[in-house]
Amino acid sequence: MIIINTGNGKGKTTASIGQIIRFLGHGFKVCLIQLFKEEYFYGEQNILIKLNNLDFFSFSMKHPYFTKNTNFTETVNGCLGAMKKLEQLSNIPKKYDLIVLEEFNIALRDRFICESKFINIVKQLSQKSNIIITGRDAPDMLIDIADLVTEMKEIKHPYKIGIKATKGIEF
Amino acid sequence: MIIINTGNGKGKTTASIGQIIRFLGHGFKVCLIQLFKEEYFYGEQNILIKLNNLDFFSFSMKHPYFTKNTNFTETVNGCLGAMKKLEQLSNIPKKYDLIVLEEFNIALRDRFICESKFINIVKQLSQKSNIIITGRDAPDMLIDIADLVTEMKEIKHPYKIGIKATKGIEF
Repeated sequence: MIIINTGNGKGKTTASIGQIIRFLGHGFKVCLIQLFKEEYFYGEQNILIKLNNLDFFSFSMKHPYFTKNTNFTETVNGCLGAMKKLEQLSNIPKKYDLIVLEEFNIALRDRFICESKFINIVKQLSQKSNIIITGRDAPDMLIDIADLVTEMKEIKHPYKIGIKATKGIEF
Repeated sequence: MIIINTGNGKGKTTASIGQIIRFLGHGFKVCLIQLFKEEYFYGEQNILIKLNNLDFFSFSMKHPYFTKNTNFTETVNGCLGAMKKLEQLSNIPKKYDLIVLEEFNIALRDRFICESKFINIVKQLSQKSNIIITGRDAPDMLIDIADLVTEMKEIKHPYKIGIKATKGIEF
């Protein structure tokens, strides 16, 4: 099954973490590949690295639009590394029940990875594993091949009244 | 901060679980109070019960609209038990950084708990703890006092094409 968490609201990443916990609780094997998430920053990382049956990879930890002085070439190379990892997984027998691709919608939107190539790999991988892809602005071609798509829609957000990102809530 | 995950889409509960993992990862203390969730059924329960700094309570494990032959009186009594727990927490000094109230929107919608009383308790509790309330059909009065509201909106769902709830995905 191909699942997409998209939209401008909160909950795309936290829902994918919750889904990882749900899979692990059943004894399933999970692979998490994160893009654009700095290490030792997000609280969940401290718990996830300790859990059994979860392989956790991180590429392109900074995004040039969000972190000043981030090199575009390094970002693209990181994303290509993530794609290589995915390709490897698509070429071996089933290893994971769930593969979570964090913020890949952003990498697609910003053209750091090739959309048609990504879609082909996801289609192949989905024959053996469930796939979750997160990030706002999921492209239409990806939504088209997905089985379950949720838009996390912002109804009210404290950013709007000037409250900054809070430890535990946003990271 | 008062946070609400509502809407007809997937991700309300999984996002709250992800948020719990994020808080715990920072060493914060968390209380989870679940309504209408059967024991030993949801995968996440097997992981959550093992984590440090998390107190986990479950009330009214069955909902009369979803599980046949469920007694209304038992459901209401369970919900009242959950309310008593909340009242106790509101009357003691800060114990938790985050309190998650799973499916309380449903209990409000179905009038198993009193809306004005619940809102008063949540307001008091939010002076010392972050609160997440989940479930579809969040009432307007609750949205009004919330700081962060996300609607999980169904764009595409495999139920619609006849695929049944799947282990790991829905439970």
